[in-house]
Amino acid sequence: MEYSTFGRHVAVDTWGVDFDKLNNAEWLESQLVEAAEISGACVMSVQSKQFEPQGATVLVLLSESHLSIHTYPEKGFAAIDCYTCGETVDPQLAIDYLVDVLQPEKTYAKKLIRGLGELQVEHPEMKTAVAAK
Amino acid sequence: MEYSTFGRHVAVDTWGVDFDKLNNAEWLESQLVEAAEISGACVMSVQSKQFEPQGATVLVLLSESHLSIHTYPEKGFAAIDCYTCGETVDPQLAIDYLVDVLQPEKTYAKKLIRGLGELQVEHPEMKTAVAAK
Repeated sequence: MEYSTFGRHVAVDTWGVDFDKLNNAEWLESQLVEAAEISGACVMSVQSKQFEPQGATVLVLLSESHLSIHTYPEKGFAAIDCYTCGETVDPQLAIDYLVDVLQPEKTYAKKLIRGLGELQVEHPEMKTAVAAK
Repeated sequence: MEYSTFGRHVAVDTWGVDFDKLNNAEWLESQLVEAAEISGACVMSVQSKQFEPQGATVLVLLSESHLSIHTYPEKGFAAIDCYTCGETVDPQLAIDYLVDVLQPEKTYAKKLIRGLGELQVEHPEMKTAVAAK
């Protein structure tokens, strides 16, 4: 079987998110798995860490690459990445789902097109949050 | 304790890498852990997957965020990300180490500055490989 190196990598910084959502690694893990499945990706395994006194990281290993979140609950901040290789899975669907559940006041996003040569940088359309100008 | 949301995220596509290096999840895992430690990051846990008929993914969960690789041995291609929050760990050191051991013929890289507002995109200096123009 021939695999394509083409991949889309959406990196989103979210601000103004509820402390309790960002400080719950277990809840975040379930949301990331749901987001991955909604995008059509295949979840292989999950790693997560609840930090003290606050903060969480979840890394989801996908057949198609990865989905991650790192949170700073005290700042209302979370950095999310979804990188998927191939044409069939759209990482933006996973990002849109997470923005829906996290309800940030503001998001800043970039999309990298990878696996084709020079990395191309695009400004993705964000579905529900106030997009940065 | 106050944590900074400031983070540096280096995304590198490498080409022309030896098939056997890219098809060995166990070896890649040890190299990513070494790279993380060289950068001064703290490794919390590691997740890896050897794909069939070829290919590997390794995700390293750091105190400071994450380090990842996704490989396509049949294309000589690997996509590497190192994202570290705070000022003390420089993700470029981890990337430089991995380029040293993988010896790609060509690399294409972008660096995102995160956690400050709009994501800034920079073109990182790559230490040993032929940088894309």
